[in-house]
Amino acid sequence: MEFAHDPATEELRSELLAFMDEHVHPAEDTFARQLGEREDPWSAPPVVTELQAEARRRGLWNLFLAGHPEHGGLSNLSYAPLAEITGRSPGLGPVALNCAAPDTGNMEVLTMFGTEDQKKRWLEPLLDARIRSAFAMTEPAVASSDATNITTSIVREGDEYVINGRKWFITGALNPACEIFIVMGKSDPGAQRHEQQSMVLVPRDTPGLRVERGMTVYGYDDSDHGGHAEVVLEDVRVPAENLIGGEGEGFAIAQARLGPGRIHHCMRSIGMAERALELTCRRVLERTAFGHPLADQGVVRQWIAEARVAIEQLRLLVLKTAYLMDTVGNKGAHTEIQAIKIATPRTVEWILDKAIQAHGAAGVSQDLPLAEWLAGARSLRLADGPDEVHLRSLGRSELRKYR
Amino acid sequence: MEFAHDPATEELRSELLAFMDEHVHPAEDTFARQLGEREDPWSAPPVVTELQAEARRRGLWNLFLAGHPEHGGLSNLSYAPLAEITGRSPGLGPVALNCAAPDTGNMEVLTMFGTEDQKKRWLEPLLDARIRSAFAMTEPAVASSDATNITTSIVREGDEYVINGRKWFITGALNPACEIFIVMGKSDPGAQRHEQQSMVLVPRDTPGLRVERGMTVYGYDDSDHGGHAEVVLEDVRVPAENLIGGEGEGFAIAQARLGPGRIHHCMRSIGMAERALELTCRRVLERTAFGHPLADQGVVRQWIAEARVAIEQLRLLVLKTAYLMDTVGNKGAHTEIQAIKIATPRTVEWILDKAIQAHGAAGVSQDLPLAEWLAGARSLRLADGPDEVHLRSLGRSELRKYR
Amino acid sequence: MEFAHDPATEELRSELLAFMDEHVHPAEDTFARQLGEREDPWSAPPVVTELQAEARRRGLWNLFLAGHPEHGGLSNLSYAPLAEITGRSPGLGPVALNCAAPDTGNMEVLTMFGTEDQKKRWLEPLLDARIRSAFAMTEPAVASSDATNITTSIVREGDEYVINGRKWFITGALNPACEIFIVMGKSDPGAQRHEQQSMVLVPRDTPGLRVERGMTVYGYDDSDHGGHAEVVLEDVRVPAENLIGGEGEGFAIAQARLGPGRIHHCMRSIGMAERALELTCRRVLERTAFGHPLADQGVVRQWIAEARVAIEQLRLLVLKTAYLMDTVGNKGAHTEIQAIKIATPRTVEWILDKAIQAHGAAGVSQDLPLAEWLAGARSLRLADGPDEVHLRSLGRSELRKYR
Amino acid sequence: MEFAHDPATEELRSELLAFMDEHVHPAEDTFARQLGEREDPWSAPPVVTELQAEARRRGLWNLFLAGHPEHGGLSNLSYAPLAEITGRSPGLGPVALNCAAPDTGNMEVLTMFGTEDQKKRWLEPLLDARIRSAFAMTEPAVASSDATNITTSIVREGDEYVINGRKWFITGALNPACEIFIVMGKSDPGAQRHEQQSMVLVPRDTPGLRVERGMTVYGYDDSDHGGHAEVVLEDVRVPAENLIGGEGEGFAIAQARLGPGRIHHCMRSIGMAERALELTCRRVLERTAFGHPLADQGVVRQWIAEARVAIEQLRLLVLKTAYLMDTVGNKGAHTEIQAIKIATPRTVEWILDKAIQAHGAAGVSQDLPLAEWLAGARSLRLADGPDEVHLRSLGRSELRKYR
Repeated sequence: MEFAHDPATEELRSELLAFMDEHVHPAEDTFARQLGEREDPWSAPPVVTELQAEARRRGLWNLFLAGHPEHGGLSNLSYAPLAEITGRSPGLGPVALNCAAPDTGNMEVLTMFGTEDQKKRWLEPLLDARIRSAFAMTEPAVASSDATNITTSIVREGDEYVINGRKWFITGALNPACEIFIVMGKSDPGAQRHEQQSMVLVPRDTPGLRVERGMTVYGYDDSDHGGHAEVVLEDVRVPAENLIGGEGEGFAIAQARLGPGRIHHCMRSIGMAERALELTCRRVLERTAFGHPLADQGVVRQWIAEARVAIEQLRLLVLKTAYLMDTVGNKGAHTEIQAIKIATPRTVEWILDKAIQAHGAAGVSQDLPLAEWLAGARSLRLADGPDEVHLRSLGRSELRKYR
Repeated sequence: MEFAHDPATEELRSELLAFMDEHVHPAEDTFARQLGEREDPWSAPPVVTELQAEARRRGLWNLFLAGHPEHGGLSNLSYAPLAEITGRSPGLGPVALNCAAPDTGNMEVLTMFGTEDQKKRWLEPLLDARIRSAFAMTEPAVASSDATNITTSIVREGDEYVINGRKWFITGALNPACEIFIVMGKSDPGAQRHEQQSMVLVPRDTPGLRVERGMTVYGYDDSDHGGHAEVVLEDVRVPAENLIGGEGEGFAIAQARLGPGRIHHCMRSIGMAERALELTCRRVLERTAFGHPLADQGVVRQWIAEARVAIEQLRLLVLKTAYLMDTVGNKGAHTEIQAIKIATPRTVEWILDKAIQAHGAAGVSQDLPLAEWLAGARSLRLADGPDEVHLRSLGRSELRKYR
Repeated sequence: MEFAHDPATEELRSELLAFMDEHVHPAEDTFARQLGEREDPWSAPPVVTELQAEARRRGLWNLFLAGHPEHGGLSNLSYAPLAEITGRSPGLGPVALNCAAPDTGNMEVLTMFGTEDQKKRWLEPLLDARIRSAFAMTEPAVASSDATNITTSIVREGDEYVINGRKWFITGALNPACEIFIVMGKSDPGAQRHEQQSMVLVPRDTPGLRVERGMTVYGYDDSDHGGHAEVVLEDVRVPAENLIGGEGEGFAIAQARLGPGRIHHCMRSIGMAERALELTCRRVLERTAFGHPLADQGVVRQWIAEARVAIEQLRLLVLKTAYLMDTVGNKGAHTEIQAIKIATPRTVEWILDKAIQAHGAAGVSQDLPLAEWLAGARSLRLADGPDEVHLRSLGRSELRKYR
Repeated sequence: MEFAHDPATEELRSELLAFMDEHVHPAEDTFARQLGEREDPWSAPPVVTELQAEARRRGLWNLFLAGHPEHGGLSNLSYAPLAEITGRSPGLGPVALNCAAPDTGNMEVLTMFGTEDQKKRWLEPLLDARIRSAFAMTEPAVASSDATNITTSIVREGDEYVINGRKWFITGALNPACEIFIVMGKSDPGAQRHEQQSMVLVPRDTPGLRVERGMTVYGYDDSDHGGHAEVVLEDVRVPAENLIGGEGEGFAIAQARLGPGRIHHCMRSIGMAERALELTCRRVLERTAFGHPLADQGVVRQWIAEARVAIEQLRLLVLKTAYLMDTVGNKGAHTEIQAIKIATPRTVEWILDKAIQAHGAAGVSQDLPLAEWLAGARSLRLADGPDEVHLRSLGRSELRKYR
């Protein structure tokens, strides 16, 4: 057992920290300003492209793609501490390194399950950050955490698939650079529970695909990364070769996609929590009430201590999960992947809530990122299935040991 | 001890429930639509005026103004259950009855401390809902929960007061109908701790008063009720007769203003929680996952039960506080007023959080009011001083019994 | 709505407070000493009898017996605040007034359902505190919160009932003064779910009834009030006239017995919490660490404030429940009775936990009553069915409104 | 970074698990029976000696003594997972391996700071388990978490030290095998804050040392490991060579003693939590209510899942702390040592509380170890200073990064 990162990872951490300090954090104000000046209100500001060029120049590119060093990919365990660092600037850090969701998951899917043609057509431009992508699974009409509920249909007609359905909270889909959608639907509703679903690639400009509106999350439209779209698919036709994997493999692909994504989300959230804690400490040291800095109040100190105790435990669990994914595979790490999905959002929410409280009214306002981050953390308690689904499943696994 | 409302209050409850069912709830969609169609993005939609006319016709008008039956005012204990009912439609209910903050508090201040001229000039149009008003206390630069921190200056020069300062989170100030500001500042920084402050009336069109921007609360601008403005006062001059009460009485007036406002806020919040609970119950009965309605899940039922247990306790405490304000006065009810300020927001937040969880992604979106309500409830943990200030003070009171 | 007690109740409160101050609290040390000197380790110390004589002399006797002023019984709403006061000295207060469980519930059962003979034989000596009694429902082998699980059999044979079964946690049964057991069992396992059970009176000296041992609750044997016995019934025969009510009415009688008992338990628990809070305040004012009294620590003050906020809400809910039982009956107050069963123990536990923390090691020791009280409060989360059963049922009631 | 134990540790884990399965767990009933048959109610049952002989034979002996392989000591990181395993049988496991508190800490003190004579006289028999020992720091009259509060005096007179004071909660002191006390007192009240204290060795039979009584923890006297004594020292005289280290070094020695002890306590507590979780799972699978096993209830499953999520995080933090102690020393691991002291007891308490709830009345009784374990876990929130002291200190460390 060894709790230090290996030297190569430490080296990358230093390089990334330098990049963040020299380029990303200084660009945060520019980013905010450019967001206000966009013509297309869903497009990415130009500073993103500049940061991407610099990151690529430094070799900080596609690091997330575990198992694919040829593209820059590290192991999950090496990438995890880097994801945390990018999370300290959640709007800029991940995208600067071409490590932003949902492209990361989509690139993984294409790497693992794509045909050579699919890779050439979609994976390569994604790896180059020339285009962006979306993943269309969640539906408004049903509880999507239960995959058998999915109502979107994918029907084979000759050399084509015909797709009909309605999706929402499709992250990134409003971004004009988003050129491809991976759409989950049912190809065989009569099959076994987890063999009814398939996934197809649907180019954005396919007739019948309509992006209707952006959904908000606590009043935020998240337009900086393409929002969360409601999307209608009406008699959308794509060539049969746009199927990913085989018919009926949609559920399995979705499962395979989940594991690494959770590591990324969780580590970035921890980075966000660390930055919130730093902001809190700085604030309470300088803000005075009733004759003393807030930092002298026992209750405030206790918040800070509790945050530290919680983060330390949480980070270790996420790192161990990354380690397990590398050593025993995503299936072998199933319980831990569920555990971090459950443990992370609420821990980070709590820390952000206290950070807001320490900042007073500014904390909930647009002058600080805290409330927006909290909205993001809170939505993670719903994304990929509500916590309750994961808790139930994890409880069942534990009970199975004694049956 | 008697836990039923008196017959007159019950009668009013019935009348208000009828008004809500016949007019307010049906107008919610119109309200939302009109909000999207406004020319001035901070103005109230026309449906508000229609509802106000109908409410006034029905005698449901200015009910909050305790001690002033001549204007329609009820006792706090009679008004409280009505405030709860209006809270079931937080954007429309209170304003329809001319019982919306911050006008309510401002009308109370003018009723209690205003001169005849001030009443004629500002109270009467407020009682008629011809104008709206703002209350400018909180400042960005200091912890405003400690009144001695206030930096805005109010300096007597001849027959005028000259005001300089910066305020923010001034609710309602962006509404074009908001014609008058009550501004808190320091007239004598060398006086006793709680005699340094004064309040003056500043008409919106006074030179030097500048409304700079709307602050957001979790991404919401709350433009339906005039937002939360950042306001600069630069060499603003008002006639000396615009002083409310005497010099040095600002802190005392602010204290007097707080009690009833908290009853109103808390009861409205309880109404909001009740509606959220209703939405939750309806949702979980009809939504199905893994073969069963969500309502069959033990965890969901427990949320619902916990919500009921919490609401019942909370409502009784708020009602008792209203009763004490009526019988022993706001000072006599000081501890209870603090207690409801502490207990209400977090209880309501918890219920809203579970309501969101039960609704899945829709819960955080613009399709349901839950996330916006939660943002409002959460900001109450900061408004009028963070909970921690009240907890400390309440703890001190309890300890004082044994010193 | 009226939150003050009526004058008669206030008068009784004063009289009871005087009795507590003059007799009960001063007797606490004697009680503790006599407990250590008993010959029979399960008997009540002699000071109890002395206090009972004095209480009876003062007319503070059998106050719990709602609906029966001829025995001293008050309404639930009048008795509730008195129960709270007795709870400040939980080992002595209730028993001194002949208002201690389980006799109270048993006297209620006999009053409501007993024949004249049963009343003469058992109710009268109980009303006089000449004997004590036990209520035998819970069984070790099954989840007794589900009455259909009960395995004890009650079989009619000629003029007798023959009883076989094993019970445990039979409070008071080890007290040598306990002369009568009310035993719940199944007389007709084939009947409707809630008509299978009957209750019979079993005198302690009946052959076949064997008190095997005292169960402990967190290391406490609660011998001061007769402990919690495991009891075996082996071919126990009682005359048929010992049946309470009719065959198959056992479940209904048990339900009728629950309501008032919960009010009593809850109000006494609140009294216990108030005393713990008082002890905490006194302790933190006098105990010094790191140069300041503990009372100056923000965290400690917050505990005290939170305790006050919680108690105020809880007490109001219990009082309202008592009011409802008086006005709409135990069935009409079903939801509230469940709510107080859920809300009370955990609230009181939290307060006791913080009281212990404020007292350091002394808090968990025999030198203070806090740990023993906490053990009692914690066991209330299990007694009469675990909280989870009540939460589930309460959740279902709430959902029923919308079906 | 590597999350698997090294092969040597894995090997030891297997050996220890075999020892637990073959000897310790089967001896639990014997242990309980012998506890009831002791002549001296504070002595260890004979089965302990038998287990010790077997453990020693197997080389499972003194494993805790980090840095001293010559006595069997492992590194903290290797010992930690073994401590967890012993914690599954808290009354027997640690003592069987001669790894039970407070002897462990006392042996560490003697190893680090003892003279050759002291080692020969006291350390050797402790390493052989021929005697037991006590550590006398806590005092009833003052908040002992603040070492400057200590009132026991240690005064040099000629060749002797004269000791006067009162201690309590001196674990193990009632055990007749306890032959030596390490006593902390003040030798120089005028010195610097942390140089006022000294430690001396006081043999149990020294005139003036009087063991007055056993303190209870939630009704438990913990007589199986010698209880928690109140001890009076009245003009106790020991030779000057009984001083440990130098005068004024008492505080530093106490600090050095704390770190490893916390790892041990925390890992054993985790073992206890794991066993409680196992008992819970087995129970809910076999216990039926309302027609289904408890394991089918969503709320129960959620408890189990939450327990798993919490334990995984906690264990990693404790292991990392052990790793840090081995690599950067106890001082370097200061923050983490505080963190595990804070995080462990409450996590384990929560799991035990739910385990009790799942077991119904049996859970709080003597038939299961759960309530007794919970009492132990709860007392850890007070032992070595209440959590609040550690939270305050940890918060201060975090803030120091930004000053």
